[in-house]
Amino acid sequence: MDNKQMLMIPGPTPVPEKVLLAMAKHPIGHRSGDFSKIIAELTANLKWLHQTENDVLMLTTSGTGAMEASIINFLSPGDRVLVGNNGKFGDRWVKVAKTFGLAVEEIKAEWGKALDPNDFKTLLEADSDKTIKALIITHSETSTGVLNDLAAINAAAKAHGGALMIVDAVTSLGATPVAIDDLGLDVVASGSQKGYMIPPGLGFVSVSAKAWQAYETATIPRFYLDLKKYKKSTDEDSSPFTPPINLMYGLQASLQMMKAEGLDAIFTRHQRHTNATRGAMKALNLPLFAPDNAASNAITAVAPLGVEAEKIRSTMRKKFDIAMAGGQDHLKGKIFRIGHLGFVCDRDILSCIGALEATLIELGYEGVTPGSGVAAAAGVLAKG
Amino acid sequence: MDNKQMLMIPGPTPVPEKVLLAMAKHPIGHRSGDFSKIIAELTANLKWLHQTENDVLMLTTSGTGAMEASIINFLSPGDRVLVGNNGKFGDRWVKVAKTFGLAVEEIKAEWGKALDPNDFKTLLEADSDKTIKALIITHSETSTGVLNDLAAINAAAKAHGGALMIVDAVTSLGATPVAIDDLGLDVVASGSQKGYMIPPGLGFVSVSAKAWQAYETATIPRFYLDLKKYKKSTDEDSSPFTPPINLMYGLQASLQMMKAEGLDAIFTRHQRHTNATRGAMKALNLPLFAPDNAASNAITAVAPLGVEAEKIRSTMRKKFDIAMAGGQDHLKGKIFRIGHLGFVCDRDILSCIGALEATLIELGYEGVTPGSGVAAAAGVLAKG
Repeated sequence: MDNKQMLMIPGPTPVPEKVLLAMAKHPIGHRSGDFSKIIAELTANLKWLHQTENDVLMLTTSGTGAMEASIINFLSPGDRVLVGNNGKFGDRWVKVAKTFGLAVEEIKAEWGKALDPNDFKTLLEADSDKTIKALIITHSETSTGVLNDLAAINAAAKAHGGALMIVDAVTSLGATPVAIDDLGLDVVASGSQKGYMIPPGLGFVSVSAKAWQAYETATIPRFYLDLKKYKKSTDEDSSPFTPPINLMYGLQASLQMMKAEGLDAIFTRHQRHTNATRGAMKALNLPLFAPDNAASNAITAVAPLGVEAEKIRSTMRKKFDIAMAGGQDHLKGKIFRIGHLGFVCDRDILSCIGALEATLIELGYEGVTPGSGVAAAAGVLAKG
Repeated sequence: MDNKQMLMIPGPTPVPEKVLLAMAKHPIGHRSGDFSKIIAELTANLKWLHQTENDVLMLTTSGTGAMEASIINFLSPGDRVLVGNNGKFGDRWVKVAKTFGLAVEEIKAEWGKALDPNDFKTLLEADSDKTIKALIITHSETSTGVLNDLAAINAAAKAHGGALMIVDAVTSLGATPVAIDDLGLDVVASGSQKGYMIPPGLGFVSVSAKAWQAYETATIPRFYLDLKKYKKSTDEDSSPFTPPINLMYGLQASLQMMKAEGLDAIFTRHQRHTNATRGAMKALNLPLFAPDNAASNAITAVAPLGVEAEKIRSTMRKKFDIAMAGGQDHLKGKIFRIGHLGFVCDRDILSCIGALEATLIELGYEGVTPGSGVAAAAGVLAKG
């Protein structure tokens, strides 16, 4: 149906009407006093969302631009880094790190499984000369719905003492606690079209004091993504280059909404939706791709048996106007992914599960008991 | 007056209501067939605006990101390049080029004067070994309102034969002909918040076949700004990374408006507004900062005598809700700049001149004959 699409993909995520209308305001000059006030408000609220006193910088980039900035500002060619790789975005970290000449040691896990913190620990404990300069990992692996054990991997980095902890939190920030200050995360990259509830076009990077120290000796050249330029301007409630003014109007509205809801309530809501979605999949005999103990709060990946994932997606789209994501790379056609990240309410979960049930029945999927998925989800949602 | 501001700065420029409302549409998935159609339309219309069959690529960056991409994809550390520098954005070219290790030879002119094409010609003619790899210039120098002689400088490059012609057309594209194919310009960078009539957040780079050849041997590392990734995706009506969907909705609307107006009409309108504005300044005895034979069609810089530029700007802003730009760097407080770029109609020019006259009278500026500025502007506008 025209104009009726519902996004249940991991980005772009649903955008509140308040945000859409805020973005339709006419831009003002980005060097004006009025815009400085907006930058000051955004910076304060971003620190709140990031649970940190570190700098949180706004870049005009996608999430990948924020990832690149997180590497090139703090490392030098030849630097030894451990890079977690258990999905498409771990793989992207590897590619970025290799592009800029880092000595990459990949810590791998099968797609759909979590990284093993002991793999990091073993290498870090053996590194008595402190040659490892950074650990680089993806927190929530969007391609598989796996949540890596950030706290455990970070603990290994902290025991080592020398390595920076660099994290892609693109689909965890705003969905799952990313306790930057409590854990001591050095560099955290994210993107706007995810938990921030606004369209794509803004990247975010938080930077610790330890990372700024590393900046001073890092030699990879950078200009547009030179984070010191952003810090200097942000400290003056300004921006080094022309910022995406209208997206920032949207961000202003979305952060105000998030503050009104509260961080704990936001995280609880995402956890509830994850539990409801996973409970429904189990009731529908649909195999979950990520294990219960490593499930992302942003996205649930499902590997259906006996019915094609792409047929499920196309039926959901055509008949019920729901967009779900497919598998990426070698998982194409093998899984579908339900995004429940950002501006998603309990009703949305029931809508999606209800439509999925109807789709499975239409496609002749055996083993589905009509109503069982919605009932399981409703049971979880009822607990609040 | 609240909500009443009129932008006469060189960016962000005024945005049509159609564009603002297009940006307020809910995003759809950027990997969907419907979005592919939008990318295909944008790409075709961008080629029309750029007057080229070359690739025109869209980046999620400010104009500076597009400038950096224009250098790092086609050159290698140590490459000898001639960089024109007669203002803040020429200076930015120098900084970017030096950051990435190029052997920069600056061709300078005083701020407010145009680059001398002979300065390039002399060096190029002496370069029998073809060691010069690129000429890098700013077409319309936003900081001073000077239009550099692109055709003459480009002719020197063409006579040399070996050097790439790399151009910052940030405030010329959409205001002044940038005849990429007719001239054979290799790399042209621009940004959305200028002649494109949309807010900031998108950068554009056009790339010639000769530049793609240079790409193959260029060794500066790049990932997020790797233009080959953008070309590969654009050829498939897609994008390598998540694009700024809502800004692209806006661009779709603005390019449709521009096509309806027609390229010649757009350029004629900008020329008329430049002539009207400059005529008015002369009638008001306000010294123009750029000479008549090197005047940008996007922006008119004025160096008032006997009255402070910043007082003029603040009165215009407070009393008439018109935002004009000030001077940058050493020109701070010495000039003001009137932007007449993008979505500007004849009425806007009269509004601005009328308010400026009133402001000058209020500030006790001697030598202003009430009505003379508006009369001069109206005289030019009457000629159509």
